[in-house]
Amino acid sequence: MPLLVVGSIALDDIETPTETRKDQLGGSCVFFSYAASYFSQVQMVGVVGDDWPDAHTQLLETRRIDTAGLQKIPGGKTFRWKARYQPNMNDRETLEVHLNVLEHFNPVLPASFQEAKFVFLGNASPVLQLRVLEQAKSAKLVVADTMDLWINIQNDELKALLKRLGGLVLNDSEARLLADDDNLVRAGKKVLDMGPKFVVIKKGEHGAMFFSEHETYVMPAFPITDVVDPTGAGDSFAGGMMGYLAEQDDFSPTSLKRAMAHGTVVASFTVEDFSLEGLKRIDRERLDARVTDYRRMLSF
Amino acid sequence: MPLLVVGSIALDDIETPTETRKDQLGGSCVFFSYAASYFSQVQMVGVVGDDWPDAHTQLLETRRIDTAGLQKIPGGKTFRWKARYQPNMNDRETLEVHLNVLEHFNPVLPASFQEAKFVFLGNASPVLQLRVLEQAKSAKLVVADTMDLWINIQNDELKALLKRLGGLVLNDSEARLLADDDNLVRAGKKVLDMGPKFVVIKKGEHGAMFFSEHETYVMPAFPITDVVDPTGAGDSFAGGMMGYLAEQDDFSPTSLKRAMAHGTVVASFTVEDFSLEGLKRIDRERLDARVTDYRRMLSF
Repeated sequence: MPLLVVGSIALDDIETPTETRKDQLGGSCVFFSYAASYFSQVQMVGVVGDDWPDAHTQLLETRRIDTAGLQKIPGGKTFRWKARYQPNMNDRETLEVHLNVLEHFNPVLPASFQEAKFVFLGNASPVLQLRVLEQAKSAKLVVADTMDLWINIQNDELKALLKRLGGLVLNDSEARLLADDDNLVRAGKKVLDMGPKFVVIKKGEHGAMFFSEHETYVMPAFPITDVVDPTGAGDSFAGGMMGYLAEQDDFSPTSLKRAMAHGTVVASFTVEDFSLEGLKRIDRERLDARVTDYRRMLSF
Repeated sequence: MPLLVVGSIALDDIETPTETRKDQLGGSCVFFSYAASYFSQVQMVGVVGDDWPDAHTQLLETRRIDTAGLQKIPGGKTFRWKARYQPNMNDRETLEVHLNVLEHFNPVLPASFQEAKFVFLGNASPVLQLRVLEQAKSAKLVVADTMDLWINIQNDELKALLKRLGGLVLNDSEARLLADDDNLVRAGKKVLDMGPKFVVIKKGEHGAMFFSEHETYVMPAFPITDVVDPTGAGDSFAGGMMGYLAEQDDFSPTSLKRAMAHGTVVASFTVEDFSLEGLKRIDRERLDARVTDYRRMLSF
């Protein structure tokens, strides 16, 4: 079952306490797609500029990723993001953001993408996310990500979007902001009351929480000794989760929980290296082996 | 199998964002003992002053807690601690500490306590902890807690203690300090290399991590909607964990993991109210029911 994702495509400059890397392949759409491609075909929609190396497109196409929705803007520059991680590798500081071609991004789904049943709306303005939603007429599960900016400046539009979502994925500080509640469990339930059928709160190194009408649970992150670069962990988590659901063609509570586990494990490979390097080293077999380890870890 | 605990007994003043409570029954020894008493007999050793209400001793004695090791210092005052919780209920500020009778506490084990097989050394100077260790000649599992103060000012003594421990329990910031490593997984392994057979890192609302020669795992906290007062959660966790081990009379990897789960669940009841109020409301059946929920939560 193909999975549609619309999101940012970026060239990142990353500073960790021990290393600096420039022009790293990144962006929510990229991490999501690569992670999801272990499980299902992916249809990606995003925008890049002239500076976008064709090699990146080719890399994505070596996977089950359809890049027909990749818009290249002549004379434009690709979205750029520069960040520095604190020694704890969980907190980071954004040093520079250059929206470039992302500023006027108007996602248009190729005809073949409009039939997608599983849809992920990467972090973008809720207005833009709604515009994508209108085009994905066959969707049976739509999940979105958001961020503090939209909670602050497009709150009404975001609330309108929430009523139309199957799921919302957001991080802990965003959940607290959106719900106006410091207790994450309560915050998750309040966001659930805003409309989505389920809510996933990402807690970085502390894992993720799941909320639906019937269930509340927490899944810890898979413990990693050498976290090299956490960039893309949340997007890889979402990609693994949605990819698993699309593969199963099901989003029952049981599938959702297994999807959370698979997302958690995919993310644990992402943080072991810069950009997609950690993911590029693994295959489905290695991924499934870590899922088995993870299951064992949580059994008592 | 009786379980010996030596630790602080306190009267706490607690400020949460919504409520202030004075003279609350507290201290590591109290929370630990009450939590452990769901599983095993407890022998507690601690010190109080003239201001200690007999009703508190009587409350502990309604449980399987032997208070023969409770020293009452004539003319002395009980240890007092005053703290304020931040709105997130995970971070707190210590406002006042009055060691009082704790300052010159010299734990002496009653003869009947010297045969204890399971021993918990609550947070205290490693010198004092070693002195208790010398008296517990029959111990087959000794687990200790510690804090940043001792890591900073009695590092050599702490390192000497670590070589003699079955287990060390400490919180995340203390583990980072002791190991001089911001990555918690690496920090846990480094502390393990200092001598204890296993290490447990408590992460507050994010649960706990376990490290031994053979295993590294994380168990999330049980999600609680209404956290009223987190005071004593870590000590209740340790009490539930050690109580379970003493009940099983076993500390194999399987028992240790189940003990972690039981400790996690006991702590989840503690944070639902002030002082021991949350624990006082439950019985073993209710506790076991939540352990079952917790096991289900972690299965996928």
